Amino acid sequence: MKILILGGDGYLGWPTAMHFSARGDEVWIIDNFAKRRWEMEEGIEPLLPIAPLHTRVNLWNESSEHKMHLRIVDLVDDRAVYKLIEECVPDTIIHYAEQPSAPYSMQGRTTAVNTQVNNIVGNLNLLFAMQKYCPDAHLVKLGTMGEYGTPNIDIEEGWLELEHNGRKDRVLYPKKPHSFYHLSKVHDSHNIEFACRVWGTRATDLNQGVVYGIDTDETLLKSEFRTSFHYDDVFGTVLNRFLVQAASGHPLTVYGSGTQTRGFLNLRDTIKCVEIAADNTPDAGEFRVFNQFTEQFSVMDLAEKVKSAGERAGLNVTINHIANPRVEQEDHYYNAKHTKLVDMGLDPILLTDEVTDSMLKSVLANCGHVDPNVFLPRITWTHRN
Amino acid sequence: MKILILGGDGYLGWPTAMHFSARGDEVWIIDNFAKRRWEMEEGIEPLLPIAPLHTRVNLWNESSEHKMHLRIVDLVDDRAVYKLIEECVPDTIIHYAEQPSAPYSMQGRTTAVNTQVNNIVGNLNLLFAMQKYCPDAHLVKLGTMGEYGTPNIDIEEGWLELEHNGRKDRVLYPKKPHSFYHLSKVHDSHNIEFACRVWGTRATDLNQGVVYGIDTDETLLKSEFRTSFHYDDVFGTVLNRFLVQAASGHPLTVYGSGTQTRGFLNLRDTIKCVEIAADNTPDAGEFRVFNQFTEQFSVMDLAEKVKSAGERAGLNVTINHIANPRVEQEDHYYNAKHTKLVDMGLDPILLTDEVTDSMLKSVLANCGHVDPNVFLPRITWTHRN
Repeated sequence: MKILILGGDGYLGWPTAMHFSARGDEVWIIDNFAKRRWEMEEGIEPLLPIAPLHTRVNLWNESSEHKMHLRIVDLVDDRAVYKLIEECVPDTIIHYAEQPSAPYSMQGRTTAVNTQVNNIVGNLNLLFAMQKYCPDAHLVKLGTMGEYGTPNIDIEEGWLELEHNGRKDRVLYPKKPHSFYHLSKVHDSHNIEFACRVWGTRATDLNQGVVYGIDTDETLLKSEFRTSFHYDDVFGTVLNRFLVQAASGHPLTVYGSGTQTRGFLNLRDTIKCVEIAADNTPDAGEFRVFNQFTEQFSVMDLAEKVKSAGERAGLNVTINHIANPRVEQEDHYYNAKHTKLVDMGLDPILLTDEVTDSMLKSVLANCGHVDPNVFLPRITWTHRN
Repeated sequence: MKILILGGDGYLGWPTAMHFSARGDEVWIIDNFAKRRWEMEEGIEPLLPIAPLHTRVNLWNESSEHKMHLRIVDLVDDRAVYKLIEECVPDTIIHYAEQPSAPYSMQGRTTAVNTQVNNIVGNLNLLFAMQKYCPDAHLVKLGTMGEYGTPNIDIEEGWLELEHNGRKDRVLYPKKPHSFYHLSKVHDSHNIEFACRVWGTRATDLNQGVVYGIDTDETLLKSEFRTSFHYDDVFGTVLNRFLVQAASGHPLTVYGSGTQTRGFLNLRDTIKCVEIAADNTPDAGEFRVFNQFTEQFSVMDLAEKVKSAGERAGLNVTINHIANPRVEQEDHYYNAKHTKLVDMGLDPILLTDEVTDSMLKSVLANCGHVDPNVFLPRITWTHRN
């Protein structure tokens, strides 16, 4: 199929692009390198340098029989989006191209507003361009499990069948997100559901858990094909940060009690889930939601796993509880359903000791340039500005 | 109290400002006249001309012992908002200052995006400025009953107590709105609830029904104090349009079957509801939601009421069913709760024959400049652009 990947420079976008290209799909990728700029604003870099996207695409195209197409497009630039969709006319669009960090959005008014405008306007421009040029295409949109928050009831997959005062309905699952970033994804979800209802758009909203991991089959093909790996307080996900802290001899920084529980998945399973979604087109007008994670852990579960992996590797790993910079429940119920992707063929890679050991080994081999200044949270949820 | 009214030039904002000033509150009003520009874009005018806001404020201040303060501020201009809130330090903020029309938002990408950006960014700027300069102030935000859509279950007031798989929670009522405009209000509601939860903001979200009516006690004091009255396809509400159609000898234009049912209220009750909300401050961190309407009617109920009023006035009123330009359910369950404001003292003005006759009489006296070209819907929900 012809598949357009938005945000192809990123941690998830780049390995996704290589994966679809490797299996023979016609891959188009776009990016505007906004995330590279946001990294500069925060003074952070990935663990290892990432070559310019053009370089990686050229290298890929030299060695692959299936060539990728690269365009530089900002989704907020509506004319550029219309031109892109008119030229490409994709069958499937994988939309990763959003500001992806909760702390980034919570720095103050400017980043909160910029996050919501960037994400909402980009997504709306895309919906309108699809309606015009490829109304039957399938939008695979990356959402987040953080849209749900931590309700005291089971989290269903996007929709909730409920009975109230003796009558029944199927409604969008109520949302209580944790940051202005997570809110932007809630707003996207509502806008997409409306497009499905009114225009017959086909959409899959992937409410993804927290991703960990370093490699996919394609990133291992050449060192230049590696994908970005962040361990900082702004763009680093928790398990990745713990691995770098352990490998570089720093304590693991647990926010508050660490009893906060979330859904997690391996980077390789992100690619697999997106592939399953792309290969199974929803009906016209269907707003389909999958909860995209494979296991639930508390932050302390992860800290203990990394501590044990460190000990197996001969490291002395300590765990530091620090004041929680976020406003969130620490003791809460959490039971999120995640059966739909498994029913469609996902065979999860679980976070076994073997997987943790392998990631730690990889990080140990590459932690010569770790910046310990970016481990500690610099952004709090309640400061005034 | 010191009360800041955002959108003080408008149909609801201006009579609200006069009402609070008349009862002795210190009233500040802002507007940026965006709505006047949007009217020009659509080629429409209110039924009677409305003097510049400065003129009305000057006239008011000449005859009232309580002076209003007027500032020209665009809520999207963050520095202007911070400056305003720092200078005014209000006790209560009544926020009417949003793009208020569903059809306007559905014209195409530009107006959909502009509506969401205008409404979301203005509201976020306000929340951040309040957090900084008046964290204990009370935000009274105008939402809409249209946020809920037409679910097959009873509509509660903002929150829903539910039991699911044997566990209970109180969640935000699930939303399924009808347009990009209504979606912007859903996004606002989520952003405000988050501010309450994280910063302790005090907020009342007024999910208002469709307003009808011409006068309040203060608009009747001088002809220059009248408020804008729209009967067109973009900014005119349905009952107001029917009254002008009947008075000017045109058929009432019912979209589709007219069995669509909504909540309605009199303009005078809008003022009363806002007053009740303002006089009863919620707790710090409370996100309080009231459904602000007094009666449910179908569109056909309203058409029949106006037809009857017309016959009592000696007019021959016909009803035309035209193709529904919107995508909405026409036959649906609708039972929306609206007891909270009544419990707090609202004594509703119901849509009696007397009230309808009085409005029709007023419109008949002022329909010399009706433009019949703006009765019919020019905007459809499904065109591509």
